[in-house]
Amino acid sequence: MEETVREYVAETGDPTEAEHRRERSTAARSMRAIFEPRAVVVVGASRQPNTIGAALLHNLKRCGFRGPIYPINPKAVEIEGLPAYSSVGAVGAPVDLAYILVPAGQVEAAVRECADVGARAVIVITAGFGEVSEEGRKAERALRDLVLSHGMRMVGPNCMGVINAHPDVSMNGTFVPVWPRAGRIGMLSQSGALGYALLDKMQSMDLGVSTFISVGNKADVSGNDLLAYWAEDPHTDVIMLYLESFGNPRKFGRVTPEVARRKPIVAVKSGRSTAGSRAASSHSAALASPDLAVEALFEQAGVIRTDTPEQLLDVVMLLSSQPIPAGPRVGVITNAGGPGILLADACEVHGLALPEFSSETIDNLRTFLPFQAGMANPIDMIASATPEQYGRAVEVVGSDPKIDSLIIIYLPPHLHPPEEVTQALGRAAATVPAHKPVLTVFMSAKGLAPVVAEGTRGRLPCYGFPENAALALSAAERYGRWRRRPRGNILALDPSARTAIRAVVDRALDKESGGSVWLEPTDLAAILKSAGVDFAPAEETDISQAAAVAERMGYPLVLKALSEQILHKSDVGGVVLGIRSREQLLAAVETMSGRLAAAGIDLRRVLLQREIGGGIEALVGVTTDRTFGPLVVCGLGGVLVELLRDAAFRIPPVSDIDAGAMVDKLRARRLLDGYRGRPPGDREALILMIQRISALIELIPEMKELDLNPVKVLEPGSGAVVVDARLRLSSGSLSGSDQQNIRQGKHLTV
Amino acid sequence: MEETVREYVAETGDPTEAEHRRERSTAARSMRAIFEPRAVVVVGASRQPNTIGAALLHNLKRCGFRGPIYPINPKAVEIEGLPAYSSVGAVGAPVDLAYILVPAGQVEAAVRECADVGARAVIVITAGFGEVSEEGRKAERALRDLVLSHGMRMVGPNCMGVINAHPDVSMNGTFVPVWPRAGRIGMLSQSGALGYALLDKMQSMDLGVSTFISVGNKADVSGNDLLAYWAEDPHTDVIMLYLESFGNPRKFGRVTPEVARRKPIVAVKSGRSTAGSRAASSHSAALASPDLAVEALFEQAGVIRTDTPEQLLDVVMLLSSQPIPAGPRVGVITNAGGPGILLADACEVHGLALPEFSSETIDNLRTFLPFQAGMANPIDMIASATPEQYGRAVEVVGSDPKIDSLIIIYLPPHLHPPEEVTQALGRAAATVPAHKPVLTVFMSAKGLAPVVAEGTRGRLPCYGFPENAALALSAAERYGRWRRRPRGNILALDPSARTAIRAVVDRALDKESGGSVWLEPTDLAAILKSAGVDFAPAEETDISQAAAVAERMGYPLVLKALSEQILHKSDVGGVVLGIRSREQLLAAVETMSGRLAAAGIDLRRVLLQREIGGGIEALVGVTTDRTFGPLVVCGLGGVLVELLRDAAFRIPPVSDIDAGAMVDKLRARRLLDGYRGRPPGDREALILMIQRISALIELIPEMKELDLNPVKVLEPGSGAVVVDARLRLSSGSLSGSDQQNIRQGKHLTV
Repeated sequence: MEETVREYVAETGDPTEAEHRRERSTAARSMRAIFEPRAVVVVGASRQPNTIGAALLHNLKRCGFRGPIYPINPKAVEIEGLPAYSSVGAVGAPVDLAYILVPAGQVEAAVRECADVGARAVIVITAGFGEVSEEGRKAERALRDLVLSHGMRMVGPNCMGVINAHPDVSMNGTFVPVWPRAGRIGMLSQSGALGYALLDKMQSMDLGVSTFISVGNKADVSGNDLLAYWAEDPHTDVIMLYLESFGNPRKFGRVTPEVARRKPIVAVKSGRSTAGSRAASSHSAALASPDLAVEALFEQAGVIRTDTPEQLLDVVMLLSSQPIPAGPRVGVITNAGGPGILLADACEVHGLALPEFSSETIDNLRTFLPFQAGMANPIDMIASATPEQYGRAVEVVGSDPKIDSLIIIYLPPHLHPPEEVTQALGRAAATVPAHKPVLTVFMSAKGLAPVVAEGTRGRLPCYGFPENAALALSAAERYGRWRRRPRGNILALDPSARTAIRAVVDRALDKESGGSVWLEPTDLAAILKSAGVDFAPAEETDISQAAAVAERMGYPLVLKALSEQILHKSDVGGVVLGIRSREQLLAAVETMSGRLAAAGIDLRRVLLQREIGGGIEALVGVTTDRTFGPLVVCGLGGVLVELLRDAAFRIPPVSDIDAGAMVDKLRARRLLDGYRGRPPGDREALILMIQRISALIELIPEMKELDLNPVKVLEPGSGAVVVDARLRLSSGSLSGSDQQNIRQGKHLTV
Repeated sequence: MEETVREYVAETGDPTEAEHRRERSTAARSMRAIFEPRAVVVVGASRQPNTIGAALLHNLKRCGFRGPIYPINPKAVEIEGLPAYSSVGAVGAPVDLAYILVPAGQVEAAVRECADVGARAVIVITAGFGEVSEEGRKAERALRDLVLSHGMRMVGPNCMGVINAHPDVSMNGTFVPVWPRAGRIGMLSQSGALGYALLDKMQSMDLGVSTFISVGNKADVSGNDLLAYWAEDPHTDVIMLYLESFGNPRKFGRVTPEVARRKPIVAVKSGRSTAGSRAASSHSAALASPDLAVEALFEQAGVIRTDTPEQLLDVVMLLSSQPIPAGPRVGVITNAGGPGILLADACEVHGLALPEFSSETIDNLRTFLPFQAGMANPIDMIASATPEQYGRAVEVVGSDPKIDSLIIIYLPPHLHPPEEVTQALGRAAATVPAHKPVLTVFMSAKGLAPVVAEGTRGRLPCYGFPENAALALSAAERYGRWRRRPRGNILALDPSARTAIRAVVDRALDKESGGSVWLEPTDLAAILKSAGVDFAPAEETDISQAAAVAERMGYPLVLKALSEQILHKSDVGGVVLGIRSREQLLAAVETMSGRLAAAGIDLRRVLLQREIGGGIEALVGVTTDRTFGPLVVCGLGGVLVELLRDAAFRIPPVSDIDAGAMVDKLRARRLLDGYRGRPPGDREALILMIQRISALIELIPEMKELDLNPVKVLEPGSGAVVVDARLRLSSGSLSGSDQQNIRQGKHLTV
């Protein structure tokens, strides 16, 4: 069996990937009309205080937008000291971008006006569309069709606006009283209110943004467009997302890893819970994505996911000023034992390590620290620590090659003014090798002067509790590991195998003419064989012929009941193992018939299968997520593992590296190393099987469910063999173009 | 077999429990000299600015201690406007409490002076004792012996002091610049610096304390004394602990549940990690307790454990002003969708529920909320929400009988002054039934005016992020569930069983004369039989006699190798199942001999055991923790579960309720309900077995390890049978009085 292997992202030659790149670069360019307009109109600008129309215009003006601002209001001559116009057409000068704040019923006409004067983008602040009713959803779709037909882009509707804080643009296009300082964070919020709360908090943390966008209902512009823009934007180093839903999760899955290789993406995705997703649906009419798929997507794509907005800010604070750590080893300096212990605990919980220091480092520290100081890691300089001692300890510990990052804890003591400590820290932090992040923890309710390191390191991230620093650093470290990981290879089935498999699938679908169908065991065996997946030899037979078939196949055999009334054979006593003779077979058939008859099942046909001795039980399969489509799943250890939900999920295509990560994620992975005297398992064969199943998904988009369970993972070098399998097809939800592609033998983009 | 059952805490008649109560009440009384002294001396008071001796005296004076303060300093006439004395003896007036701040070498003499004048307690601020060296540990022990011999109590050494904020005492006996407002939180910190940081933070959160204590090295006064004091203290409602180690964990385990039934105890216990416990040891010379036992202890004892100090404050803020929720059902009101979704997610993660409201509630809300408002739970009143709408929504939702608690989210909008909202909330919160906690989440970096409810509810807890409110409420809810739970009964073995078991144990120990010994299978079988634990019938035999024994026992049998060289028989092929005839037995013995010979083991003796068909595999056992002593362990599902570490631990004695909670904690617990067509298991029998093992621990303190593995849990009503067992005894680490108690047949207090 021949196979071709292609790079996850082919550098040249793959037309699909080239198409994607072109698409991304178009998206990025189109965002410039939104973030870097030369002139803007505000349709619905108002003189009425405490209105959105007044607040947004006021923000644009007071924050010093660099281009002309044209307020549109048929009843006003002048607003905020700017001449007002009765209509967009009346402006008589070029306009790139329009803010639209008129009532919902007037939005479409306003957008038409903007299209007529050649505006390239609109930001529809107005609410009352898809988020409230079916009628609103219709109006929203009409708006989207309108802007698309004019080659324009639209943000919203139902959004809070956009910000570009860079001094060259200086545009505050929101209606809330916030104006972040210019910085290097690109920020998206699917909730306007939360976006405002985060900006407010970031201001108090002195975190600056490059650009901010409230995407509202995402009728047109969505996260994918923004990722494409920020990937190219020279003013953005870190991308920060608050998401409640995915418009096009497959595209998101394709775009994010490319972007995340260049710039960290940090995200909160809410709506995990039943109540949360209920709230999410009613909030923005978006389908909540079950969290499993989201988790898999973020993990594969290198997105740093945090559980809460507070953690989101903590991580962004670190990434926007410090380098990505090269490894998990942290050096800690403190002037109080308790917080040092808490930090050590939190580091270990989050996968960071506190190595002991070299004797050279300790000897060096001893020259200036008191004898009571603790010389393990954390270094406890005790409460008497002077600013000078802080500075020298940072220099000594920071330069120890055994650590990748440095965390400094400081509790204001009563003897030295805190400013002297922060100044000493700032000087010393500049001596720490540039590739090591430096973090501070100041446990004080009173604000301390921030530590500003000399040189390029800038202001050091500062946390109020040790755990926050540990969590942020561990997130950065995990991201660094992801980024260093090779991309891996995607396995593709060879053309003849593809043709053979599609023939089986098409025949099965033709027979059923739509709807859902469980594949016949022989068909499934044929597919697995073509895909290079080993299946334990098996034959179907009427029970009357079972003995004859068994004699031909040879023993030991497994007897399995065949009936459409049975889903899980072992649950109803439909499986008998270890049949070693004709007599045992006949007895087993009789017993099984009786047992099933008692359950109302008439046993007529059975499957005889060669028994695979030994091996570690695994599960490889496919399940379909309502939003994300197919997911590859893998588990180890038989029925108990199912009970304990020890399984890993990935969105296809699954590379060899991804498949290895899936196996490593299982708690039962130690079984493969040989557990308690048991033989080890062929890890490589399991990984290869996962890849082959991923390739099958690409080829059979009609596959809704696949269960290879159990798979027996034999000893290293001996492979992995499927013992039982089932596959459900359904062509129902397939799009027309997908179907056409399949018939033409084209790759599907998954 | 007869059994007696006694109440977890006998109300009368149990001399041991009465002793404990007396001990606690003595401890509580002795703490009054520390927290409620009539007059204090400050030994080492100083005029030198920026010294501890100046700062502590200054704090006592400026915060208005109600009694006389006598500074002791041989070189001064007056300090802080108070007449100074050359020695404690020179004061010439009654003194209850002494603060000692002189250098370490002078502390003992100072304590003697205090004893001479009849002081009842000393607080040794001075550091340089047990935390720095072996010499220091010796000096510390000498200090403790000294105070005990004079019937005094000692706080420290190496501590930050104590505070009693109640206006009747008004004592700030610390050297840090903090003076918390009087409140109802009793607070202990094992780290002075962290205690300071927490007090500082609490001041900014307007959280008041009744009493605060920094316990330092805990040479005398420890957490157990404080728990006894706060349990009785009428000014304390909530107990807040920061712990790094346990001095007497068994006593802590005995005291805490009694206290926690009356007042919530919220604790951070640090030193979970390797690095953390290394830091904890060097920090305070305390043995770090492995976290497993701590987790078990807190869970059993009803202590609310939080992972971080930030969460500690969040929980205390809730408990110090609101009632304990009666259940997990939360109603949420918000003016922004995003934060509502985040809160819903966090509630579900933490085990709280957001039920849908009654149609009556929704109809009521519709009368005053706009049509765009979301009527699911959370109620999304959208950004236009007025103060009046907030107030009415709180009244309506708060009174819905479907909810047990109410959380109000508020993001400052641009239209209404926030103060009007907080006022409306304060009025409305007073209408919510008094047994339902009310929490607020204000997402704003600018401080908002706190919500003060009319009536007894006082200031409402206010959180900066939704997740913090959810976590705090869930902790309170879990605690409420613990407190409502019956205490359960402790099973005790009857006297004749006790005598029989001790006889076997004593004989085994006598034979070994100290050291560690694995019990002979027949001895262990005898013990389990006496304890009422079913063991599958088994006989030991030389391999030459195996066939004869087997014929006598009957089939099916299991053959097990007996050799001291084997610890886990199944790992070396030392177990053969399903032997149904003499021929099969002989063949199995031969094969096994060969296999073991290849591993260098000479097989001479074997165990023949009746094979127990079916059943769910479980593990019941005992393991010994270095600090906590014996722990009872329980797991379900065989070797895989061991691999996945799905086990529950408890500190004995384990009541029936505790044992049930252990089983419920297992992820594999669904096996007992019958999983995927498998028969269910006898849950009650498993619970009873756990209790019997707990009772065995009480009777056999020399038991260091016990493994009942596998136990077969048969179908309901059919019991649970031990298939394999091993037990290790060691009398080495037993105290003399414990040994004497055992010989006298007395109960041991575990």
